[in-house]
Amino acid sequence: MTSQHIFLNGAILPAEQALISPLDIGLLRGYAVFDLLRTVNGRPFLLAEHLKRLRSSAELLGLSVPYSDIQIAEAIGELLVLNCHAEATVRMVLTGGPSADGMHFDPATPTFYILTHELKPPAASLYVTGAKLITKRHLREIPEAKTTNYLTMLRHRDETLAEDALDLLYHDGEYIAEAATASFYVVSNGVVKAPHSDVLWGTVGALVLELAAENHEVVLGAVTLEDAFGAQEAFLTSTTRGVLPIVQLDGRLIGDGTVGPVTRELMAAWERVLLGE
Amino acid sequence: MTSQHIFLNGAILPAEQALISPLDIGLLRGYAVFDLLRTVNGRPFLLAEHLKRLRSSAELLGLSVPYSDIQIAEAIGELLVLNCHAEATVRMVLTGGPSADGMHFDPATPTFYILTHELKPPAASLYVTGAKLITKRHLREIPEAKTTNYLTMLRHRDETLAEDALDLLYHDGEYIAEAATASFYVVSNGVVKAPHSDVLWGTVGALVLELAAENHEVVLGAVTLEDAFGAQEAFLTSTTRGVLPIVQLDGRLIGDGTVGPVTRELMAAWERVLLGE
Repeated sequence: MTSQHIFLNGAILPAEQALISPLDIGLLRGYAVFDLLRTVNGRPFLLAEHLKRLRSSAELLGLSVPYSDIQIAEAIGELLVLNCHAEATVRMVLTGGPSADGMHFDPATPTFYILTHELKPPAASLYVTGAKLITKRHLREIPEAKTTNYLTMLRHRDETLAEDALDLLYHDGEYIAEAATASFYVVSNGVVKAPHSDVLWGTVGALVLELAAENHEVVLGAVTLEDAFGAQEAFLTSTTRGVLPIVQLDGRLIGDGTVGPVTRELMAAWERVLLGE
Repeated sequence: MTSQHIFLNGAILPAEQALISPLDIGLLRGYAVFDLLRTVNGRPFLLAEHLKRLRSSAELLGLSVPYSDIQIAEAIGELLVLNCHAEATVRMVLTGGPSADGMHFDPATPTFYILTHELKPPAASLYVTGAKLITKRHLREIPEAKTTNYLTMLRHRDETLAEDALDLLYHDGEYIAEAATASFYVVSNGVVKAPHSDVLWGTVGALVLELAAENHEVVLGAVTLEDAFGAQEAFLTSTTRGVLPIVQLDGRLIGDGTVGPVTRELMAAWERVLLGE
């Protein structure tokens, strides 16, 4: 269920009263960033990391989040009480604000809003069978920023669904970058390999790589398409999905097409993080 | 001056009542297209061409404009009466509509709105001295669609202004595509050359090329960066600027850095089109 209350530019409003100008440059020019976090036991999880990433995304667009971390934490706290989710995702959106001419906007009047939704994790069976991705030649325009531009992902949704795939895996023709909505990693000969350029910093991914480094070699660097197709294991990480095994790319099996031991180990390790163990 | 009245989803409303949901996928995911036309003597100019392009952009995103050409023409006519501009630009925006989860949207409930603004042509002196562009390695994500994604243009606005440049000229490292907000053409040895791939179809550009073809050879095809820097003349075309001479690229003069004879001829020819001669 969607937010019944929304935080918009300093006020918490009933959803039907929280409305945006059609002159907003986030609409007219797609000039906007966002971030998405989840709750664990009803409380925002990795809030500091998500706020850090949101501010970093904003800075890359010359924007500035107009509230302190504490103000945002308080707003999220109030929304979670009002909106009554079992567990929630919390979406924070920042745009350049209204623009009279569709070109200029005033940095002093950004649009900032927070929505909450009921958390919808993927089907539990996907963690048992593993999921499929399809590769797509595309790099996001400002990969280090979480902008609202998802043209390529949405335009290929029908194709993605038709292939029974979970997401697109972006690459530049030679090197893997990231999935449209997740970080992507491969395991080869016991080494966990993480693409390191043209990717968004993953809040979950960063922690999972730390967990992986306790028992395995972890290499941050170039990962080719060939590495990905030839890997023994692959998995993605994201806020809503944690560690999710990937067993097929473009219909080709990764390894033997089952969830491998390193992925299994990291799924379990991530569950322990969520349980606060 | 900005629209005092806005057409939104079938109704003409005072601007302060024409508001958009923060759940609109045009905001959450930048999933939107638009088109912009101008009036001549208070009447929409090239309306059929702009509507054709809008529908084509929409189709490339799997969207559909929810009104007929006649309904849109009527809405624009009413807005122009209510909003009282000397001459206007008319902006039509189409998004996928509201999305409860930021991923799915219902093709039956798009968001479509029309804004009008007072037409603001560039400074008249630019047509005498010519303008500057700076080159930027970038191709738009779906070049044939006029999407709302202007991340690269807006992110480089300060740099553009610091260089006293009018706009960015996009290229892929070897071939010229288009300016961020205009079509771009070069003239070499009397031949008018028009980049033909990775570009938006230009409503003004197409007509200007027809005018050019009356007296000159016109070649639609690959135009390299080298062609552009080595051209005798260059110009851009756009709805609000008509034919505008370009005399510098990245601070290097094109030809002798003055407005050349072919550009001058096309500027005059375009003026005659606007005057209905």
